[in-house]
Amino acid sequence: MEARNDLPHVVIVGGGFGGLYAARVLGNKPVRVTLIDKKNHHTFQPLLYQVATAGLSPGEIAAPIRGVLSRYRNIEVLLGEVTAVDPSRNVIQFARNELTGDPGDPGEIAFDYLILATGASHNYFGHPEWARLAPGLKTIEDATEIRRRILLAFELAERRARVLGKQDPINFVIVGAGPTGVELAGTLTEIARRVLNQEFHSIDPARARVILVEAGPRVLPTYPEELSHSAEEQLKHLGVEVMNNARVTQIEPDHVMIGDARLPAAVTLWSAGVQASPLGKTLGVPIDRAGRVIVEPDLTIPGHPNIFVIGDLADAKNPDGKPVPGVSPAAIQMGRYAAHTILDDLTAKKSRKPFVYFDKGSLATIGRAAAVADFGKIHLSGYIAWLAWLFIHIFFLIGFKNRLIVITEWAWAYFTFQRGARLITGNSDAVAPPEHSGT
Amino acid sequence: MEARNDLPHVVIVGGGFGGLYAARVLGNKPVRVTLIDKKNHHTFQPLLYQVATAGLSPGEIAAPIRGVLSRYRNIEVLLGEVTAVDPSRNVIQFARNELTGDPGDPGEIAFDYLILATGASHNYFGHPEWARLAPGLKTIEDATEIRRRILLAFELAERRARVLGKQDPINFVIVGAGPTGVELAGTLTEIARRVLNQEFHSIDPARARVILVEAGPRVLPTYPEELSHSAEEQLKHLGVEVMNNARVTQIEPDHVMIGDARLPAAVTLWSAGVQASPLGKTLGVPIDRAGRVIVEPDLTIPGHPNIFVIGDLADAKNPDGKPVPGVSPAAIQMGRYAAHTILDDLTAKKSRKPFVYFDKGSLATIGRAAAVADFGKIHLSGYIAWLAWLFIHIFFLIGFKNRLIVITEWAWAYFTFQRGARLITGNSDAVAPPEHSGT
Repeated sequence: MEARNDLPHVVIVGGGFGGLYAARVLGNKPVRVTLIDKKNHHTFQPLLYQVATAGLSPGEIAAPIRGVLSRYRNIEVLLGEVTAVDPSRNVIQFARNELTGDPGDPGEIAFDYLILATGASHNYFGHPEWARLAPGLKTIEDATEIRRRILLAFELAERRARVLGKQDPINFVIVGAGPTGVELAGTLTEIARRVLNQEFHSIDPARARVILVEAGPRVLPTYPEELSHSAEEQLKHLGVEVMNNARVTQIEPDHVMIGDARLPAAVTLWSAGVQASPLGKTLGVPIDRAGRVIVEPDLTIPGHPNIFVIGDLADAKNPDGKPVPGVSPAAIQMGRYAAHTILDDLTAKKSRKPFVYFDKGSLATIGRAAAVADFGKIHLSGYIAWLAWLFIHIFFLIGFKNRLIVITEWAWAYFTFQRGARLITGNSDAVAPPEHSGT
Repeated sequence: MEARNDLPHVVIVGGGFGGLYAARVLGNKPVRVTLIDKKNHHTFQPLLYQVATAGLSPGEIAAPIRGVLSRYRNIEVLLGEVTAVDPSRNVIQFARNELTGDPGDPGEIAFDYLILATGASHNYFGHPEWARLAPGLKTIEDATEIRRRILLAFELAERRARVLGKQDPINFVIVGAGPTGVELAGTLTEIARRVLNQEFHSIDPARARVILVEAGPRVLPTYPEELSHSAEEQLKHLGVEVMNNARVTQIEPDHVMIGDARLPAAVTLWSAGVQASPLGKTLGVPIDRAGRVIVEPDLTIPGHPNIFVIGDLADAKNPDGKPVPGVSPAAIQMGRYAAHTILDDLTAKKSRKPFVYFDKGSLATIGRAAAVADFGKIHLSGYIAWLAWLFIHIFFLIGFKNRLIVITEWAWAYFTFQRGARLITGNSDAVAPPEHSGT
């Protein structure tokens, strides 16, 4: 109510890193802002794998968007799913009646400026049927579903051993060795060997195999070769089996085909590719193979200097022609750039400087006290890289209270090898043998 | 593997307070124990309402049963749903193939002693169709579903106000004013008035009405009248509307009928009655109206001194004829009694002393710094009762790490009026107007 209706209206779609940081720049400035997301919470995606592997609870890495932005009186937050953008009329559209269920619902909201930041989801490369069999990790719901499957695999193996005397293989197959795949593989191995190994009587969880399958020649393909090599060594040291140059050709409930080889799999996880949000297509401008919108140097779309596309939805290039990577720091920098550009526009500055991504380095964690870090000239591995990763992640975790709690959780986990969030919740078939049970 | 197969086999069904405390007494004793639960986690039920009202995360009030019992090498934990007991053959039964999905699965497990502790769920008094419209609060899944409905009600009202300019009533109707109903009503009012009130632009969450509907003449009917009166005053002071002598006759998606009066309801919650687990019926012995098994003075069933029924599933009486109440301390005491009785049996002690419930008092919290406590001769109200409640609950919270985290969460919530666990997760219809939207 505080924002005057005669102020320019900036609509932000998406409450991830890009959208949220754009909103923060526009907070308490002479604009009216509406941030729309289909979830009510911001998810700290870099730590989703900790929820999937039962180290953290969902509430510890997610924060209600309303709460995060409540101190800015000019920002309205709406829960809703935008289905299209009409750049010719400067409106975003919702499914009919979606917002209110009322026949009088206009189904659209007008903007003066638009920042589109709806990110990406998984890409199954023409096999949408694999989504059910090999979930990916982008949302809190994904993470709790993966946690459920992992924990159930051990419970089912225990039951079969106890009742039938059968020792089934417990294989976890992770497809794709980017940062998420590496994090999942390392953490899952540690849980099996250090947490669960004391808790089962009829099976030995440490016998579980974690197999990381990568189509390319090395893990962490976007990192320098030297760090890929170090990451693979650290993974193997933890007990992960790494298969490079291995292309998955089929996924079934209880196994994965790699070429002609059949790999039994109690649980299969997907971290092999991303597909940009379908909203990009509705803009009517060129998109790339991954569905990302090819943006101008100022992150707008051709012919519409008031429509910005940022984060994982944007195919952006630095002035030197180098592509901007799909990582959180890039999304944050793009969000800030778009917001500042809008504010500059309104104070009548004329020319726009192009967006330049400043690469502060990359970090991938592998497990307890294992990680790799690429700070340009400086490459770190092992414990020191892991410490750097730990402090940077806690520092950026949104919400001071969550930082405190995450530190407590991690200190506890580190010294006791316990993981407290091992809950199987959700689906009512939680006790029935899942279809990927194997026989 | 450590438990020798020639030791007497004690099967415990249910990992609530009764089952868990029985297991602890039997831990590292000369018996072989199998604890079976259909969930993989123990739920600290007295704090479920905090999850339902977004104050705590599920992981903070639930602990994996395997983890809690891992230090006892003679206790096996199995995830599974027992469907029947056959006292004549001393076996418990599972749905066909339920445990393993294997055709060779015998579907039953034999015991020498059985402790049945499967508790109770909601009683809709002949209206099972109300369960979908007015969820109750017994499990983690119940709590996150209630949280989802509460938060969505505010989001939907905001969207309708923003898009259509309509100010819909936001009524929360809570049916049943026992401890759970009182806790939910008080906490919900506080969230609306102190947490959410700063975060919406088009609606005023403080306008939301919380209506506590009780069929009997007073809230907290099992407490002394003086404390019921004090609780009602404290509820009204917080802003809760209390309706005594009001019987719900119908529940619909957007309203509740109380006699002939129609009460619009954005969300309806159920805390009016409990129904014992259906497993009790399969014993073939007398049960009471609530489905509870009428037990002997030693908590066993007639003719089967090796089968104990404890906790909310038992209709037990003290030697003075006073019924044992369905509260956590009673379940804990019964669990310990059953386990000690079994150990005494095995050391050839002959006569069994009857079970005697020792009433340490009752506490019900109402909101921030509001509660009532009944310690027999001592009755407490308000801030001091709330402090007593706080410390007793944190003290009993299973797992030291959870205690630390819950204290951090609460200190944070107390001083900042923030509630961090405000996540809408789960159902994919999270953004569509729920059917109880009203028009």
